[in-house]
Amino acid sequence: MRYGYFGTMRVKPGHRDEVVATLVSGQDGLRAAGCDLYAVGVSDDDTGDKDLVWVTEIWVSKEAHDASLGLPEVKAAIAKTMPLLTGEFTGQEVEIVGGLGVPGDH
Amino acid sequence: MRYGYFGTMRVKPGHRDEVVATLVSGQDGLRAAGCDLYAVGVSDDDTGDKDLVWVTEIWVSKEAHDASLGLPEVKAAIAKTMPLLTGEFTGQEVEIVGGLGVPGDH
Repeated sequence: MRYGYFGTMRVKPGHRDEVVATLVSGQDGLRAAGCDLYAVGVSDDDTGDKDLVWVTEIWVSKEAHDASLGLPEVKAAIAKTMPLLTGEFTGQEVEIVGGLGVPGDH
Repeated sequence: MRYGYFGTMRVKPGHRDEVVATLVSGQDGLRAAGCDLYAVGVSDDDTGDKDLVWVTEIWVSKEAHDASLGLPEVKAAIAKTMPLLTGEFTGQEVEIVGGLGVPGDH
């Protein structure tokens, strides 16, 4: 089964757009590394938490995900982003059974 | 921006596979209704919560998502699934800024 990772990171006030831009742009090597989805989300509605960034990832395997943390562009994105974060993270790993948009769903 | 919905539903013990099968199979009309992703996940590792099902959705808009709840196949899937659930749900709506696998990312 594919590997899913759903996480949030809290951004220091005023730096969200910078973090989002880095996360969305650093995508080149991810597909080749086995990433199907790396979606970046925010919540700007009334009840939303404006300093929180959501990341939703689907990978061919947990091993591929873990190995990607060694990619130069991923390391660069982490180095660029980390100083702009408060250090508060949440994360949930799941096994992706299937569904629309999940490779192998057709 | 695209609409993201990340939710969990708690399943009555022993019924998870049945619920997952229904959620994964009922996909026909979703793409046409504006759904890009409807990924169904579980967690079977040691720390996992075996009676929880994760659903990760990305839609062209919130309106498309909300309208889909009126689709016959969605209504049928809900009717089939609801009796197998405890009624405990979590849900988070986000605006999907972009990223790998999000339409418009290339």
